[in-house]
Amino acid sequence: MNFRLIKKDAKTRARAALFKTAHGDVVTPVFMPVGTQGSVKAISPQDLNDIGAEIILGNTYHLYLRPGAKVVYKAGGLQKFNSWHKPILTDSGGFQIFSLNELNKITPDGFAFRSHLDGSEHFFSPETVIDIQRDLGSDIMMVLDECVSYPAEYSYVRESIRLTIDWAEKSLKSFQEIPARHGFSQTIFAIVQGSVYAECRRDCTLALRDLDFPGYAIGGLSVGEPKQAMYEMTDIVTELLPENKPRYLMGVGKPEDLLEGIQHGIDMFDCILPTRNGRNGQAFTADGPINIKNNQNKEAFEPLDKECTCMTCRHFSRAYLRHLYMAKELLVLKLLSYHNLFFYIALVKRARKAILQDRFLEFKKEFLARYTNNQG
Amino acid sequence: MNFRLIKKDAKTRARAALFKTAHGDVVTPVFMPVGTQGSVKAISPQDLNDIGAEIILGNTYHLYLRPGAKVVYKAGGLQKFNSWHKPILTDSGGFQIFSLNELNKITPDGFAFRSHLDGSEHFFSPETVIDIQRDLGSDIMMVLDECVSYPAEYSYVRESIRLTIDWAEKSLKSFQEIPARHGFSQTIFAIVQGSVYAECRRDCTLALRDLDFPGYAIGGLSVGEPKQAMYEMTDIVTELLPENKPRYLMGVGKPEDLLEGIQHGIDMFDCILPTRNGRNGQAFTADGPINIKNNQNKEAFEPLDKECTCMTCRHFSRAYLRHLYMAKELLVLKLLSYHNLFFYIALVKRARKAILQDRFLEFKKEFLARYTNNQG
Repeated sequence: MNFRLIKKDAKTRARAALFKTAHGDVVTPVFMPVGTQGSVKAISPQDLNDIGAEIILGNTYHLYLRPGAKVVYKAGGLQKFNSWHKPILTDSGGFQIFSLNELNKITPDGFAFRSHLDGSEHFFSPETVIDIQRDLGSDIMMVLDECVSYPAEYSYVRESIRLTIDWAEKSLKSFQEIPARHGFSQTIFAIVQGSVYAECRRDCTLALRDLDFPGYAIGGLSVGEPKQAMYEMTDIVTELLPENKPRYLMGVGKPEDLLEGIQHGIDMFDCILPTRNGRNGQAFTADGPINIKNNQNKEAFEPLDKECTCMTCRHFSRAYLRHLYMAKELLVLKLLSYHNLFFYIALVKRARKAILQDRFLEFKKEFLARYTNNQG
Repeated sequence: MNFRLIKKDAKTRARAALFKTAHGDVVTPVFMPVGTQGSVKAISPQDLNDIGAEIILGNTYHLYLRPGAKVVYKAGGLQKFNSWHKPILTDSGGFQIFSLNELNKITPDGFAFRSHLDGSEHFFSPETVIDIQRDLGSDIMMVLDECVSYPAEYSYVRESIRLTIDWAEKSLKSFQEIPARHGFSQTIFAIVQGSVYAECRRDCTLALRDLDFPGYAIGGLSVGEPKQAMYEMTDIVTELLPENKPRYLMGVGKPEDLLEGIQHGIDMFDCILPTRNGRNGQAFTADGPINIKNNQNKEAFEPLDKECTCMTCRHFSRAYLRHLYMAKELLVLKLLSYHNLFFYIALVKRARKAILQDRFLEFKKEFLARYTNNQG
């Protein structure tokens, strides 16, 4: 993977970088909107471009079940299928198998599971997951891993990281053996597991580092553990990861978590919060999150965030958005999701700028002072 | 109302015209997307501009109840509230009171009704409805009328049109007495009722014509009567209406109904079909309507309509749209609504062009030959 470290912050582990994919460059830190089923909920690819997104997520488990990997393959890959022509990262689906299915079984070879859609039986191995992602044609593929739920016994986690490391090795071998199918190259990231056990995280990181993957993700965090544990584990992992490869903290998080992650050396983030919370009526602003349903917005003819330059804030007032929400008008789901994604992406872009100016900690402090002022 | 007849078709009553409003000109025949609650469902004002919409609808009854006429007034009128800066027509709400409420009562002075939202009691008179529309600041206001359901007894319809005529007179008086509140002028249309009784339609038209309204609507059609009756009533009314005023056929209809209406001298149409059917998975195409859910679309990597130049058809395949629909992805509601509105608006624009070229009947024949070929 063509990864270039552009600037390291003087006081923290924060960094600004760039990596290249067949569908364009991505500058980091980067926030990746989540398009689980091949669509970022309520948001079009044109919207994503306007928002400033550089890379989005898809999910192997979901796309495999529906519409089916072969349909996406015949369409010419995900980008041709969904009309988003910039990079796409596909998560492997291990997390989804466990969160959506009670009828699943883990073996040394992979996961046996039943579809959450129709109960049909399937088996995901490290090899099949690479094969599926070759069909999907994602720019960045993820290995199959076991995402251990929280809390977990030490002994279980110990065993589990052995499996995750073994599967990572098998995944890398498949990646090398199964050629790309869409005329462009793809890359593959390993996933560090280990729950909240420093020793497990350390061992898993070292083993995966030895396998020399093009990039590394940190999984199994933001699953219910204390914030402090999440930050500590991140720190342990990023300290050991090679500097010249991208690091991706999976499924994180709130705005404050993104800044904390960046401070601990993370380059890439994804999270459903901006879109899901948007659909639930929450909007992120420089002064903290607001609930559009609140009565005080009834005659608030100002935008969600006076300093925001997004389409929603340029055209619509809180009063109108509240009206749409109360009247169950579909448009509001798009308008709030759009604003929240814009907020997240603008935040990481500002963090990047601060890193380049050697003032990341000051930026973080200024942002949080205002952002947390109206909360709790 | 500044209305200019530009061209009359040589063989039919079809016509091309133009009228001016404070928010811009409208060329006719025109199709008006329906934004009942101040938003065309799943479609943004920016989308509407791209689609080529020139005027949209709002609904007095709905906006009065939620967010309240005074909220819209304080926002600076509907256009400032919803960020659609071209003309808006507001329906009066008589139709909604009857279709949404069982607890309503008609008196010589107006409607007593209960809100379908919270059961609260309200009264709409011809005068209050004008007052509310002054708050809303719609470019075209509609009078309060009684929309008689189908079928109805002759004696009931006879009495009802007396009321509708009386209310129209009161509405016009209020329109003249209650000044505009947003610094721009508004206009008002009367509504011809009379169910499927030629004599009632004729009498109602003549009486309303004598009141010299700036424009005329035909209401109480497309409510369950046979198509033939709808066309006959339309013909009776347009024959008697003054030529130099716009005619609006309310709530109509399917693509073939629009062409029939145009042939019978109608200038303006509105209908929820393109958006509602879009949300239900139906797309209109030159070869007739299709259901996106059909299995044959699973690997159909062509657009909904190969000749369509809309955003949906330029970027997305039937296969992707079907996937979004099956996966319950919100984006598909927008994409199908967008395409259907584009189809409707392109259709009336083509009809206008045909009228200007004196080949309306040929155009209609060509369109229907293909459109109806795949149906039934």
